[in-house]
Amino acid sequence: MSDSIHISALRGLIGDHAVLTEPADMAPYETGARYDKGLAAFVARPGSTEHLSAAVAYCVQHGICLVPQSGNTGLVSGSTPDATGAQGVLSLDRLTSIFELDRANRSVRVAAGMRLSDLNARLEDAGLCFPIDLGADPRVGGMVATNTGGSRFLRYGDVRRNTLGLKVVLADATGTVLDLTSDLRKNNTGVDLKQLFIGTSGSYGVITECVLNLEPVPQQTATALLVPASPESVSDLLNAMEAAVGSYLSAFEGMSGNAVRAALDHVPSLRNPFQGGIVPDFVILAEISRSNTPRKGEQSLDEVLETVLEEIWEGEDQLLADAFVGPPGEIWAMRHALSEGVKHRGRLVAFDLSFRRGDVMRFLDRMKTELPVKFPDVTICDFGHIGDGGVHFNLVVARDDARMSDGAFENSLRAWVFDIAVQQFGGSFSAEHAIGRKNQAFYDRYTPREIRKLSASLRKVTSPGALGSMKF
Amino acid sequence: MSDSIHISALRGLIGDHAVLTEPADMAPYETGARYDKGLAAFVARPGSTEHLSAAVAYCVQHGICLVPQSGNTGLVSGSTPDATGAQGVLSLDRLTSIFELDRANRSVRVAAGMRLSDLNARLEDAGLCFPIDLGADPRVGGMVATNTGGSRFLRYGDVRRNTLGLKVVLADATGTVLDLTSDLRKNNTGVDLKQLFIGTSGSYGVITECVLNLEPVPQQTATALLVPASPESVSDLLNAMEAAVGSYLSAFEGMSGNAVRAALDHVPSLRNPFQGGIVPDFVILAEISRSNTPRKGEQSLDEVLETVLEEIWEGEDQLLADAFVGPPGEIWAMRHALSEGVKHRGRLVAFDLSFRRGDVMRFLDRMKTELPVKFPDVTICDFGHIGDGGVHFNLVVARDDARMSDGAFENSLRAWVFDIAVQQFGGSFSAEHAIGRKNQAFYDRYTPREIRKLSASLRKVTSPGALGSMKF
Repeated sequence: MSDSIHISALRGLIGDHAVLTEPADMAPYETGARYDKGLAAFVARPGSTEHLSAAVAYCVQHGICLVPQSGNTGLVSGSTPDATGAQGVLSLDRLTSIFELDRANRSVRVAAGMRLSDLNARLEDAGLCFPIDLGADPRVGGMVATNTGGSRFLRYGDVRRNTLGLKVVLADATGTVLDLTSDLRKNNTGVDLKQLFIGTSGSYGVITECVLNLEPVPQQTATALLVPASPESVSDLLNAMEAAVGSYLSAFEGMSGNAVRAALDHVPSLRNPFQGGIVPDFVILAEISRSNTPRKGEQSLDEVLETVLEEIWEGEDQLLADAFVGPPGEIWAMRHALSEGVKHRGRLVAFDLSFRRGDVMRFLDRMKTELPVKFPDVTICDFGHIGDGGVHFNLVVARDDARMSDGAFENSLRAWVFDIAVQQFGGSFSAEHAIGRKNQAFYDRYTPREIRKLSASLRKVTSPGALGSMKF
Repeated sequence: MSDSIHISALRGLIGDHAVLTEPADMAPYETGARYDKGLAAFVARPGSTEHLSAAVAYCVQHGICLVPQSGNTGLVSGSTPDATGAQGVLSLDRLTSIFELDRANRSVRVAAGMRLSDLNARLEDAGLCFPIDLGADPRVGGMVATNTGGSRFLRYGDVRRNTLGLKVVLADATGTVLDLTSDLRKNNTGVDLKQLFIGTSGSYGVITECVLNLEPVPQQTATALLVPASPESVSDLLNAMEAAVGSYLSAFEGMSGNAVRAALDHVPSLRNPFQGGIVPDFVILAEISRSNTPRKGEQSLDEVLETVLEEIWEGEDQLLADAFVGPPGEIWAMRHALSEGVKHRGRLVAFDLSFRRGDVMRFLDRMKTELPVKFPDVTICDFGHIGDGGVHFNLVVARDDARMSDGAFENSLRAWVFDIAVQQFGGSFSAEHAIGRKNQAFYDRYTPREIRKLSASLRKVTSPGALGSMKF
């Protein structure tokens, strides 16, 4: 493209300092959180919905592809430009000025560029939170665009469930601003258009404002580590916990022994909580929580959890090999160290899978049997959200493994795992990371033709211009 | 249309007995639950998705408009044919054969024609339920097509939140069957197409199969009647209850004194639970519930509710004028009698509104002041779901009121209420009934042009044929 003319034009529309072109300034916007580095033609950082609309309209008119970027914490190369140098980055990082809390409605209206941590810090005094619990600290617009889930999905659901309204800019010749910012909980007056922009990685339109559901911050929490009697008992254990504590259950996370050992090795300050220091093959972190401060006559949550685990322990089904209640801070510290720990074990080939809840352990069991035969010297270090069927299925290969020198081995490993997960178990190849360049090939492979066709047609009607890194 | 040729053709496709044409046979399919009676060209009752697809394809090819009909319990004339006699009814009532329960996944796959009551009866042994609580007994497909909410929305959300997957037939020349029947909870692999068919009254496509989230049946329930100190304290009372019992709160229903008196008068077996039999101006039904059977050392839910109400009673804010815990069966019987009671008071002009939660009482207050001036001799008998901002705003006019002899008075009353609710309070003119002929004019009036335009374009891409009673 005739760069300088477009750059000047964009600067005229949204401000001189709002368009970056220096390589050093652009570098952070070109580099993804986990994978690869692209090349941006420019980085546009509009400070308002109106400016963002003007920039989008200009780029659509001139055939320039824009890649919307929010917090750039995604793991599938959905928010960075490709290597051609022809794509512009459209950053939300200056859209941070709106914060309108409605306590009675338990909702908040925020600009899409606000960080999750900022949002929750500002909600603290009201005793409320946006209940999506993640390892990363994304901006809100990107959370909606990828429909993030996280560790408390079981209790609070995903971002979709907690989104009341959106303001969106469409990639058409006028940069149409679609105001879908309802703050109503019940509203059935036609098609719910905001759903198109949730989980579609910014390819249907650019989110600039969000109205979000809030929840009371839990005031009491109790956690336990459970060692299931066998892989088969995990699913029954989950159902037993749900029957026993119902909506108090706020996490039910699975951790493989390999992942736990990697975390304990990597973070020496973590205490090994297991008897004799022997890490079991598979451990579950169960958390219950409630929003009230302790009340007269009320059992403490630790007592509740103790009682429930005792009942399950003594039950006929013998679901538990071991179980103990422990301090939430310590137990979650171990859970949160898994990701970094696993990364330090070697070269990581990571999968973001999900299954019917009852299939999680069946899939893991099959992998344990077949992987070593098919791909020797690859270690399984999985962990994940059993309560909602999610599995961060991580494979680790030694750093000096010659097979990793070109992409062929990794590609065949990836294809083999995905084929079993998706085609044989009916699972998802992207449970909570949505679609970007990194997993586009699998979208193409596993999405039935009529669904791809309809998705592409709908997208063309909504945002005909080139937007986002996802291809339909 | 050249009727007999089409009827024969349809019978050839889906079976002789699956196409009704006798007036007596068609009558129940032509008459809505609350409003008016239409005229059907025929009633097609396919027994499978394949037959339904064949019927839809035929009708699209021959320009015949089909109105999908599920349980026909809707209140906005969304599922009955118009008066022209040119529309065919496409009934789901023979699609009842699929019922696949997955206990570990807490989900069920059902044919769209299954009644809600049948579904829950079949789930009882597993201790699970589809947690949408309604006065009517619709079929599942219609519940999804209208995204029903109901009395336990506060705890379990709407049908959208509880729908994991759908199978849909599109109104195109081939009757495309779109299989979106995932049973995954976490799956972000592109645009979530099923959302287009939720709440769009069958106009985007006909739902033939549903995969639904299930919840444990509550094993303990406690209810109380709360008399707020003033209309202003209702919203604070709700927030106080949410802080105190969090996710145990399963209903927070508002009932006007007029509606309660109408119920008590209409159903003599109901006990008047108020001191001295004096019904207050406004009462709240609060319910808490949990999924476990009583456990050693655990306070009973009645005790929990007593303690919480005592704390609120003694609090500085003086939110309560009165409050008492009572038997759930008795209290819910009164709540469930409101609708019938109000109907027997006179001619009903009913509104299905919703607001930001903090606005519910402000709207009601404004109506109490202005309605008698603007429209004398109209009684407000509202009740609704304060916890989610929903209000069944019912107006009652004497049966012999001359103003009701033509539609003009009712139309101006309706327009006046809706304008205030929607334009001045930012509320919804259809909180949980979706869109049909009865409220189409208000869709046209209140939906911004660019939203109508995009909705119509998306619909045309999805189902180009004539389908459903809603117009975009």
